[in-house]
Amino acid sequence: MLSKNKIKLIRSLDQKKHRKEHNLFIVEGEKMVNELLTSSLSIREIYATRVYYEKIIKKQSLEINQVTEKELGQISQLKTPNQTLALVEIPNISTNECNTQKGLYLVLDNVQDPGNLGTIIRTANWFGVSTIFCSPDTVDAYNSKVVQATMGAIFTTQVVYTDLTEIFKNAKKHYTPIYGTSLKGENLYKKTLSENALIVMGNESKGISENTYLHIDEKILIPTFVEENVNVIESLNVGIATSIVLSEFRRQGAENRKR
Amino acid sequence: MLSKNKIKLIRSLDQKKHRKEHNLFIVEGEKMVNELLTSSLSIREIYATRVYYEKIIKKQSLEINQVTEKELGQISQLKTPNQTLALVEIPNISTNECNTQKGLYLVLDNVQDPGNLGTIIRTANWFGVSTIFCSPDTVDAYNSKVVQATMGAIFTTQVVYTDLTEIFKNAKKHYTPIYGTSLKGENLYKKTLSENALIVMGNESKGISENTYLHIDEKILIPTFVEENVNVIESLNVGIATSIVLSEFRRQGAENRKR
Repeated sequence: MLSKNKIKLIRSLDQKKHRKEHNLFIVEGEKMVNELLTSSLSIREIYATRVYYEKIIKKQSLEINQVTEKELGQISQLKTPNQTLALVEIPNISTNECNTQKGLYLVLDNVQDPGNLGTIIRTANWFGVSTIFCSPDTVDAYNSKVVQATMGAIFTTQVVYTDLTEIFKNAKKHYTPIYGTSLKGENLYKKTLSENALIVMGNESKGISENTYLHIDEKILIPTFVEENVNVIESLNVGIATSIVLSEFRRQGAENRKR
Repeated sequence: MLSKNKIKLIRSLDQKKHRKEHNLFIVEGEKMVNELLTSSLSIREIYATRVYYEKIIKKQSLEINQVTEKELGQISQLKTPNQTLALVEIPNISTNECNTQKGLYLVLDNVQDPGNLGTIIRTANWFGVSTIFCSPDTVDAYNSKVVQATMGAIFTTQVVYTDLTEIFKNAKKHYTPIYGTSLKGENLYKKTLSENALIVMGNESKGISENTYLHIDEKILIPTFVEENVNVIESLNVGIATSIVLSEFRRQGAENRKR
């Protein structure tokens, strides 16, 4: 049985300050917890209904707390609770890993929507981006909505919250170019893109902040193909824009390796 | 003042059957209603708080119903109502427009999430896709969540709900190739893509249905670039996958026109 205090603690994890205080975040649902079990993250506790309990108890050396559907409902942050919920330790990321010498990195400047951040982490994983730098005002990656939207990519992606200026300084020291999307940018498809790079994406409505914009070396634009007599929307969703840009960086990279 | 019956009618439009019955859908917020006013859609009624009322009354010949913030809250489907709400007639799309002879078309097979459909319509607009065919079991495009997520693209995009088999037959008659994403597909970046084509995208968890899959001529795959020792997620979000595929079709098209 779940104690009142335990329920209170778990429910409090919907707030960033409580996640920080306990150094814990929530992972929910069969698929996500299955993924979690294959990751290297430290699981503090797992709650499971009988259905899921019987599925995993044989495989795991972990202690699993069996709960009723009703109890799961009391601790779940989902509209439709799904068999299991785990409390996981927030990984400790050392600043040594903020090296931007080799490889492709994402930098998020004040992205606000949890769904967008989750989708960006998911897409970054697919395209082999293992570290994402976020400005301190970007939404917290251990927010449940973000975690669930990553479909498990959060378990293997390093999300580092830090002063972006430091990251840009480091990149410049290593001559790593900094790309950013801008309405004044050059056509993405016509630019020669480097796979050793930082790609900066901005806020949903305001785009890249003035301060960050000063650091951008290469301004890129995803061109529209709308017909002349048709109204075109102002911009693409930030998750969509990120995916198109990542796809093109990787496509060009593969093309170059072939030569 | 808003009558109880009017409030009831507007609130009922959160359900598809009532939207069909009244042939109306809801558009909310300053930005969206501004876009709406530049479109060719028929606006039945506009409700506005004093702030928005004073902004648009001079420009429009339309009759605008002034409401209080509280009244707007009673009819709004947003968490944070935003100055204005319009009732708009659902456009009547004739089946003549289901011709798939020239151009790039999207086909959605049982896409369920309103946010995904909205983002897909927004992205389609950016990439100059003016018609989207949806299987009858795809979420309704005039659902408020879809409408708001399109950022206005719904006003200029034709979304046609129809038996997909008919669309595929028509495409084959015109020798228009039918592309679809599949885990068994060929690398998207290595394929020669035609801008006269149908692109089929499937359900969030199940992908393209068995029936639809039989009609796919060209199976494509967005390759992953994850490093070998890192876990990779199973798939991309359907909105993300759609955008990457559209981007690559248009990039190749532009490249070919240059030659």
